[in-house]
Amino acid sequence: MRISSGVDGFDDLVDGGLPAGRLYVVCGPPGSGKTTFSSQFVTRGAASGERCLFLSMHETKDDIVEDMSNYEFGFDRAMASDRVTFLDAFSNDGKRFFGLPGDHHDKSNLTNRIVSFVESRDIKRLVVDSTMLLRYFLSDDEDTLIGFLSALKRTDATILLIAEMTDPTSYADEHYLAHGVVFLHNYLEADGMTRGVQVVKMRGTDVDTDIHPVAFDDDGIHVDVSATVTR
Amino acid sequence: MRISSGVDGFDDLVDGGLPAGRLYVVCGPPGSGKTTFSSQFVTRGAASGERCLFLSMHETKDDIVEDMSNYEFGFDRAMASDRVTFLDAFSNDGKRFFGLPGDHHDKSNLTNRIVSFVESRDIKRLVVDSTMLLRYFLSDDEDTLIGFLSALKRTDATILLIAEMTDPTSYADEHYLAHGVVFLHNYLEADGMTRGVQVVKMRGTDVDTDIHPVAFDDDGIHVDVSATVTR
Amino acid sequence: MRISSGVDGFDDLVDGGLPAGRLYVVCGPPGSGKTTFSSQFVTRGAASGERCLFLSMHETKDDIVEDMSNYEFGFDRAMASDRVTFLDAFSNDGKRFFGLPGDHHDKSNLTNRIVSFVESRDIKRLVVDSTMLLRYFLSDDEDTLIGFLSALKRTDATILLIAEMTDPTSYADEHYLAHGVVFLHNYLEADGMTRGVQVVKMRGTDVDTDIHPVAFDDDGIHVDVSATVTR
Amino acid sequence: MRISSGVDGFDDLVDGGLPAGRLYVVCGPPGSGKTTFSSQFVTRGAASGERCLFLSMHETKDDIVEDMSNYEFGFDRAMASDRVTFLDAFSNDGKRFFGLPGDHHDKSNLTNRIVSFVESRDIKRLVVDSTMLLRYFLSDDEDTLIGFLSALKRTDATILLIAEMTDPTSYADEHYLAHGVVFLHNYLEADGMTRGVQVVKMRGTDVDTDIHPVAFDDDGIHVDVSATVTR
Amino acid sequence: MRISSGVDGFDDLVDGGLPAGRLYVVCGPPGSGKTTFSSQFVTRGAASGERCLFLSMHETKDDIVEDMSNYEFGFDRAMASDRVTFLDAFSNDGKRFFGLPGDHHDKSNLTNRIVSFVESRDIKRLVVDSTMLLRYFLSDDEDTLIGFLSALKRTDATILLIAEMTDPTSYADEHYLAHGVVFLHNYLEADGMTRGVQVVKMRGTDVDTDIHPVAFDDDGIHVDVSATVTR
Amino acid sequence: MRISSGVDGFDDLVDGGLPAGRLYVVCGPPGSGKTTFSSQFVTRGAASGERCLFLSMHETKDDIVEDMSNYEFGFDRAMASDRVTFLDAFSNDGKRFFGLPGDHHDKSNLTNRIVSFVESRDIKRLVVDSTMLLRYFLSDDEDTLIGFLSALKRTDATILLIAEMTDPTSYADEHYLAHGVVFLHNYLEADGMTRGVQVVKMRGTDVDTDIHPVAFDDDGIHVDVSATVTR
Repeated sequence: MRISSGVDGFDDLVDGGLPAGRLYVVCGPPGSGKTTFSSQFVTRGAASGERCLFLSMHETKDDIVEDMSNYEFGFDRAMASDRVTFLDAFSNDGKRFFGLPGDHHDKSNLTNRIVSFVESRDIKRLVVDSTMLLRYFLSDDEDTLIGFLSALKRTDATILLIAEMTDPTSYADEHYLAHGVVFLHNYLEADGMTRGVQVVKMRGTDVDTDIHPVAFDDDGIHVDVSATVTR
Repeated sequence: MRISSGVDGFDDLVDGGLPAGRLYVVCGPPGSGKTTFSSQFVTRGAASGERCLFLSMHETKDDIVEDMSNYEFGFDRAMASDRVTFLDAFSNDGKRFFGLPGDHHDKSNLTNRIVSFVESRDIKRLVVDSTMLLRYFLSDDEDTLIGFLSALKRTDATILLIAEMTDPTSYADEHYLAHGVVFLHNYLEADGMTRGVQVVKMRGTDVDTDIHPVAFDDDGIHVDVSATVTR
Repeated sequence: MRISSGVDGFDDLVDGGLPAGRLYVVCGPPGSGKTTFSSQFVTRGAASGERCLFLSMHETKDDIVEDMSNYEFGFDRAMASDRVTFLDAFSNDGKRFFGLPGDHHDKSNLTNRIVSFVESRDIKRLVVDSTMLLRYFLSDDEDTLIGFLSALKRTDATILLIAEMTDPTSYADEHYLAHGVVFLHNYLEADGMTRGVQVVKMRGTDVDTDIHPVAFDDDGIHVDVSATVTR
Repeated sequence: MRISSGVDGFDDLVDGGLPAGRLYVVCGPPGSGKTTFSSQFVTRGAASGERCLFLSMHETKDDIVEDMSNYEFGFDRAMASDRVTFLDAFSNDGKRFFGLPGDHHDKSNLTNRIVSFVESRDIKRLVVDSTMLLRYFLSDDEDTLIGFLSALKRTDATILLIAEMTDPTSYADEHYLAHGVVFLHNYLEADGMTRGVQVVKMRGTDVDTDIHPVAFDDDGIHVDVSATVTR
Repeated sequence: MRISSGVDGFDDLVDGGLPAGRLYVVCGPPGSGKTTFSSQFVTRGAASGERCLFLSMHETKDDIVEDMSNYEFGFDRAMASDRVTFLDAFSNDGKRFFGLPGDHHDKSNLTNRIVSFVESRDIKRLVVDSTMLLRYFLSDDEDTLIGFLSALKRTDATILLIAEMTDPTSYADEHYLAHGVVFLHNYLEADGMTRGVQVVKMRGTDVDTDIHPVAFDDDGIHVDVSATVTR
Repeated sequence: MRISSGVDGFDDLVDGGLPAGRLYVVCGPPGSGKTTFSSQFVTRGAASGERCLFLSMHETKDDIVEDMSNYEFGFDRAMASDRVTFLDAFSNDGKRFFGLPGDHHDKSNLTNRIVSFVESRDIKRLVVDSTMLLRYFLSDDEDTLIGFLSALKRTDATILLIAEMTDPTSYADEHYLAHGVVFLHNYLEADGMTRGVQVVKMRGTDVDTDIHPVAFDDDGIHVDVSATVTR
C-alpha cells in the first residue's frame, strides 16, 4: 500500500506515493524545508483520518504552528484535531517521554516508550525531529540510534526521520537503515541559494532520482516534476 | 510579532524584522562584524524600551564600549541606560553567574541561572557571546549546549548567539537548533577581504537568501539590499 | 569451481562466474542495488538446489519479499522453498543468533554461532547484510570483524558481504580481507544519478575492471557488458 | 590610546597603531617572521620607556639576541636595558615561572604567576612565544589557554601572542579571543616563497585587510603599504 | 649482494635486484597484485634453493595455490617443495604462532616467535601478508609494529611486507622503517583501471622512480621497463 | 659561527653555512635523501676533527655504511675513525641508551641520558634519526618530544633531526621548535619523481627559500644553486 506524502508533486517521484509502514529519512542543511515537508506529511495523514505523532525535540507546538501559519495547507486544523499528537521533548508530557528531569519521569528506555506509544495508539504516521537530538537523548549504551530505528521499523507506522546532513555524498547509519532517503538541497550558488528535492533511495519502488526544483508557495513545498536542476 | 534587528537594511532580508522570542545564530570568521551586529541589536532594543542582557565571555564592558565608539549608533547611551545589563564572565558579577571561583559563587547550573535571570527581569533581547566560550563554561555533563539552547528558546527573549564558524557549508548543532542562521562572510579574495551577509535559515519567514554586501560606516553595519555578492 | 552470481551479465565480468567458497564484498551508496544483487545471488543458489542463508540485520522477511516483488526473478519462490533460511536479527530466531535480549539467547559469540550454523547445515551461499550492523553486533573485543570474516572464509560457503561505502577510492578492512570486491556505483551527475558496476578485485580470476552500465528491469539488475561508463 | 608596533609600515594598516592594553595574535608558518615582528615590538616599547616582558618557551636570550643581530633596529640595546625582562622557560628564572623541576619552583598556577608579574612590575608590553608551548605548560585542568588569555586581557599590558598557524582560513580559540589577528604569510609559489602581512581582525579599528608585501631589510620587517599581494 | 625479485622486468628498476637481508614494503589498493608479486618472490627463492617463509594472516594455503594456478611461474611446485613454509594464522600451526586460542599456544610474543623461527631455520626470504592483520595480532603494548619490523630487519632474511595503502602520497610508519617501498598502482581512469609499478624508495640503490606499466600474463606480473605511465 | 653542512651547494642557500650549536629539522618523504644528507653532515664534521654522534633508531651501522658505499664522500672512513659514535637503538650499547630490555639498562630518562652523553663527550654534531622513532621511545609522560628538543637545543652541539613529513604545508611541533627547517622534496609528476631541496626557515640567516634541484652523484647529494624547480 502506498500513501501520499502530502507534498504537491513529490508522490510522482516515488511511483505514486510512499510505501506504507516504512522508515524514510528526510535530510538537508538548515533552512532546506525539512520541517515543512514533515508538517505536510502529518497534515495529509490527519486529513485521511490517520492517527499521527509528531515528536519534536526542539520546537514547541506553538512555534511550529506559527511557522506553518505562513502556508494554507491546514497544519493548524490538523494540529487542533484529535488525530495528531505533538510531543515536545521539553514540555511536561515530553519530559516523561524523553527522560528529562521532572515529576513523573518514566524510567524505561526511550525506544521502548515510543514503540509502546505507537503500537498502543495505532499511530499510522510518525515524524521524528531530529537525529541530532535523538542521539542526545539516546546517549545510554542500551538505547542506541541503530536499535531505536530498527525497533521503529517493526511497527506499522510510516516514519519520517528528519536528519541533519549537508553533503549529499556523505552518508550516515540512518541512510542505510532507512527504506528511503529524500534529500532537500539548498546550496549556495554564485547568485544565491538553489532549492531542490532528490529521492536518493526508495526500496521496492521505481524511483525518479533526478533533482527537481522546489518552491515554497502558499500551499507549502511544491515539487516541479517536469523540470530538473543540474548542479 | 517581528522586531527590528537594528542593522540598517537587514530587516528587509527577513520580511521586515526578526520574529520575536526566538533564537538566532550570528556566525562568521574573526573580524566579520558579529559583535557589532549584536551591539546594534541591543541598542535598538534599549531605544524601544526593552530590557536587554549582553552576556560576554571574553570582553569587558569598557572594551566593548570603546570598540563601538567608532560608530555613532548610540551603543554608549544604551549601555549607560538602565535597560541594558552587561555581564562579563570575569567581572565580579560575572563570576557568580558563570561559576568562576570567587566569593559568592552560585552553585546551581549555568542554564538555570541564566533562564531565571531572563525570566525574572523580563529580558526581551539577549546576546550570548559566544558558543566557543559557552562550551568552556558548560563542560559539566548536566549542563550542555543543546540543553542550554533548548531552555533559552523557551523564554520570551529574542536571542542572538554569536558563533565561531568559518565555512558556510559546515554546520554545527546550534545551526539546527536555532530558528534562524545569519552568516557574516569575510573571505579572502585575490584583492583583499570581501564582506557580506546571508540569511541561511529563518523559520516562519519569507527569506532572501542572497549574499548582500556589507559596509561598515559611521552608523555601524550597513546591508546593501539592492546588490548581491557572487563568490 | 565457479558459480553463477544470478545477475544477468555479471558473470561475464569475472571469467564466467564467482570462484566458489570465497568471500566477496558488494559495496555502494544507499539505493545502488546491493540488496537486489544479493537477492538474485540467493535465488540462483536455491534454483540450483543449494542451501542458502540470508542474514539481515535490518530487514524483515516480509519487507524484502515485498521489495523484490517488483521483479520477476523468483525471489518469492526461493524464499518460500526449504532451501533458503532468512534470519532477521530482530525476529525471535534472530535474537537468539545475534545476542539481543530475549528468552533463549545463546551466550557463545556470534562468530562461532554463525560458523556452526553454516557448517552443520551445509550452507553453500551466505549473504551478510551488512558490515555497519555487523560491527554493531560485534562490539565485543573477542568478536571482531576481522576475526568474523577470517572464520567465515574458512567455511565452504560462498559469501556476499554487503558493505556501506561511498567512495571507490577509500577502502576498509573488509576490502582487503575479501577475495573479491564489487562496487555498485550510483553517483550524482549534472543530469541525475548514473548507475554502474565495477569489479575492483577478484583473486584467481582474469577480471574486467571497467565500469559497466547497470539497469533495473523486470528480471532485476542487468549488467551491460558491451558498454562502459566513463566518469 | 594607540601605540606603535615598531614595524615600519605596519601601523598604517591599523589606523596609526595598535590600541593599547589589548591582546593580539601574530601567526604564520615557520620562517614567516613572527619572532622578528615581536622583537621589533619590544624594542619600540623599550625605546619609549615602557617596561616589557618577553616570555620565550623555546629560545635562550643569547640565541634571540644573536638572531636579531642581523638587523639594526637595536634589539640588543633594548635587551641590555633594564626595561626589558626576557624570561626563558628553561633558564633558572624561567623554571620557577613555568613550573619546571628546579630549586625554587612556585606551586601556584602559571596564569596567576604571569598576571602577578605583569601587574606588580607595571609591564606595558608582553610577548608570549608561543601558543604551542603555552599549551604544553598549561596542561593542568585548572590552567587552560582560554583562562590564561582571558586573565591576561584584563591586565593593562599590550600583548602579542605568537601562534603557530599555517592556513589563513582555519582559526583556533586564540583568534576569537584576541582583539586583533595579524597573519604573516609565507607561502610556496611556483617560483619560491612569497611573504606578506595581513590584518585579519582588529577590534575598534578602521582596518586595511589587504595582504601587503613584506621585506626583511637591515631595519627588520618592512611592510609595503602601497602594494598588495594577490594569491 | 642483490637477489632477484622473481618479477619479470622489476629487477631492472632497482639496479639489477633487491639488496639482500633487508625489508621492503609492497603496497597498493585491493586487486593491485601485491600477493602475486610476493608469490613470484617466494617462487624465485625456492628455485634458487633458499628457504622461504610465507606468513599469511588471511589466506589458506589451498586458496593461494589455487589463485596462482592461473599463472605458470611455478608457485605450486615451490609450495610443494620443502623449501617453502606457508603459515596460515588460522590453521593449527598458525594458531600456535599467532597466539589464537588453541591447544598448544606459545605464550611468548609474536615478534620473538617469528624472529626465532627465521633464525633457527635459516630463512632467506620472508613474506608477511599483511600490515593490517599484523596490527590486529600485535595489539599488545609490548609487541608493536615498530618493534616487530625493527627486530625482523636485524635477521638475515629479505622481507616483503604487504601493506594496504591507497594513496601514494600518504605514508605510514612501515614506509619509513623499510629499506625500500614499492607501490603497485591500480587507479580508476575514465576508461577503466590502469596498472603500474613504482619504486618510491630503495636505500643503497640507484633507482628508477618512474611509474612503469604492469601486465598480468601467464608468467604472472610483468613490468614494462621501456614504457612509463603518466597520471 | 657557521659550519659547513657537507652537502655540495647547500651552504650557499644559508649564507655560507649552518649557524653552529642549533637544531635543524631535515624532513621529506621516503626516499628523498634525508639519511644521505645527514651522513654527509657527519662526515664533514669528522673531517674537521669534531666529535659526532649519529643516533639511529632503525638502522644498523653496517647497513648505513653499506648504503653510503655507493658514494665517495668518505662516510666509511669517518665511521671508522674515533670521532664518530654511531648508536643503533637495538644494538647492545643502544639498548642501554634507549631503554630497551637488556642487561645494563639505564633507568634515567632518555632526554637526560643523551644530553649527558653530548655534554660529557663534547659532541659537536648530532644526528637524530628520526622523530617517528623518537616518539616511540619517548612515550613516557616525563619525557616528551618538546622537552627532549628543548633540552638538546641548550647543548653546544649542532643537531640534525630527521623528520618524516610529506606535505610542505603541514607543520608539526618540531618545525616550530627548530632553528631551521630543510625540506627535501621528492614528488610524483606526470613523468616520474622530481627531487629538490628547500630551506623553509633558518633563524638569524639571510636565506634563499627557492626550491633548488637535487642530484645524487658519486659525491652524494648535490644542490644546484643556479637553478630552481617550479611545482
